[in-house]
Amino acid sequence: MIVAVDAMGGDRAPGVIVEGALAASKLGVEVTLVGDEKRILAALAPHTSRTPVSVHHCEECIGMDEPPLRAVRQKKKASIRVAFDLLREGAADAVVSAGNSGATLAAGVLSLGRIQGVERPAIASIFPGEKGRVVVIDVGANVDCRPSHLFKFGIMGHAFARSCLGMKDPKIGLLSIGEEGSKGNEQVRQARELFERSRLNFCGNVEGRDLFTGDVQIIVCDGFVGNVALKLTEGMAEAMTRLLESELARSFRGRTAHLFGRRPLRRFKRKIDYEEYGGAPLLGINGVGIICHGGSSARAIKNAIGMASEYVKHRVVERLILQLKSLNEESVPAQA
Amino acid sequence: MIVAVDAMGGDRAPGVIVEGALAASKLGVEVTLVGDEKRILAALAPHTSRTPVSVHHCEECIGMDEPPLRAVRQKKKASIRVAFDLLREGAADAVVSAGNSGATLAAGVLSLGRIQGVERPAIASIFPGEKGRVVVIDVGANVDCRPSHLFKFGIMGHAFARSCLGMKDPKIGLLSIGEEGSKGNEQVRQARELFERSRLNFCGNVEGRDLFTGDVQIIVCDGFVGNVALKLTEGMAEAMTRLLESELARSFRGRTAHLFGRRPLRRFKRKIDYEEYGGAPLLGINGVGIICHGGSSARAIKNAIGMASEYVKHRVVERLILQLKSLNEESVPAQA
Repeated sequence: MIVAVDAMGGDRAPGVIVEGALAASKLGVEVTLVGDEKRILAALAPHTSRTPVSVHHCEECIGMDEPPLRAVRQKKKASIRVAFDLLREGAADAVVSAGNSGATLAAGVLSLGRIQGVERPAIASIFPGEKGRVVVIDVGANVDCRPSHLFKFGIMGHAFARSCLGMKDPKIGLLSIGEEGSKGNEQVRQARELFERSRLNFCGNVEGRDLFTGDVQIIVCDGFVGNVALKLTEGMAEAMTRLLESELARSFRGRTAHLFGRRPLRRFKRKIDYEEYGGAPLLGINGVGIICHGGSSARAIKNAIGMASEYVKHRVVERLILQLKSLNEESVPAQA
Repeated sequence: MIVAVDAMGGDRAPGVIVEGALAASKLGVEVTLVGDEKRILAALAPHTSRTPVSVHHCEECIGMDEPPLRAVRQKKKASIRVAFDLLREGAADAVVSAGNSGATLAAGVLSLGRIQGVERPAIASIFPGEKGRVVVIDVGANVDCRPSHLFKFGIMGHAFARSCLGMKDPKIGLLSIGEEGSKGNEQVRQARELFERSRLNFCGNVEGRDLFTGDVQIIVCDGFVGNVALKLTEGMAEAMTRLLESELARSFRGRTAHLFGRRPLRRFKRKIDYEEYGGAPLLGINGVGIICHGGSSARAIKNAIGMASEYVKHRVVERLILQLKSLNEESVPAQA
């Protein structure tokens, strides 16, 4: 199995991407780095004399601030396009990118197409809730959504949770600002009606705090709200870790506590560190695509490559296709 | 100075509201509890034989799930309406409510009217950023906003930060999902143009993580996104605190660390606990109104009453009116 990694995508590419790929290859995953060969080899040089990863050269790349759709259409030789083309041609089994996420989405759709029944692919992020994992969908692929899109995200999230996370009948909640049905904006109130008419295990509105409880297993929101939420939790986890350490450093007793608590504190930090989770699957395209944070570290890239490899092994896309097919037949209300 | 408190508003009203009011009155704030006299007196009874707070009886109250505008119009004797009426008549100087926030907003506007130049009042929440306080506006009053509303929230936030928080030329950021101007939904992209044409100290898009840094002092968003963000941070703070404690409790060394670190851990918890901050000011109405979380504890209510009393003392509304007047003359682009 081969994971194609966009070596040019991310704030610190190709350096950290190459490092992450090397770390993943040590765990037994075959990696193809896609991008400017010269720069990739230069980044590889300090780490290794032989090359445990292969390099697929291409000339162009897409910047973080380029308009995704246009860039993907115009730059046929951009690293993210080439990576997905390798997947289509059978030269790779999955794609990982920390680059422009809109461009990753567009390249994935252009190259692989959508799964039947999917209007808009979406990015799912898996949160470590206290009672179990929580799938939040969408966290950034679709910033302007109609209520019917939210409903479809729910179906896709359900299919993903069942087929890939082994959840039997996952509960679905709609992210809003109060549990009452009257609460929320126009988009959410209309989406709620669609969910209520469906046969999905819909629990009504949930609030931001439910991302951490695990009382519902799937939380649906539009990509703007979801992405704000994702970055908020990342920023807050970092800020809280810094605050905790500075409070402990202020006194002798605090420093003693830090000494004794080194291991539990490390476990705590690891649990709230998004880098542990690596990336977020792009659901709805005909293949495995994992999207990483632009600021990803080498560890995050390594974990995302591991995730991609797991998803291929467990035939996540095939199972998603089957689930979506039966769900689209069963659960969609006539009017949706 | 008298603070009128809606005794019937909140998930655990009137019990915790009464407790909070008693605690505030011990700090020297005069409180009038507005609501069902019998239930209020029953809640007071276990705490005190004499009554250090006064009670203003009214028969009705508005539930959390009632449609705010209709409820406020129909229930003229609802506690939140009566509280604002007391303020209008000069029998109170500020209002605090943990009830239906839409109803609090509607009652405030109906009873006191808007400040000149304000189209839509908004709720501001003050976050404890690492480099200083961050005003997030709106966190729940307006769930469906046009770009021009976001711009006006920025003006109001600026006026509030200058007049009430002593910030000289606060930086304003627009909450989005990437720093680049092309990032965000339609609403945000259009609002960004309005800000760029204004004379405000506008820094472009910011992301969720900026709520905790303090790099910008005012973060503008619509009330849906802001409220999701607010509840997310509260939920995450609670979840992280529980996680930290359970990690420490798992081993002898961890429990030792907990023992030594009791004080720093308490400081840490206090800093991330929203109850410390009590409530969020409702900006844009002609009077001081503080909105509290429905799930507020007695301590949160006490702190919100304290905040209301400070705002009256510092003539927050009068200063906001002056600031808004000069800003509306200076900073609004011709086309806004």
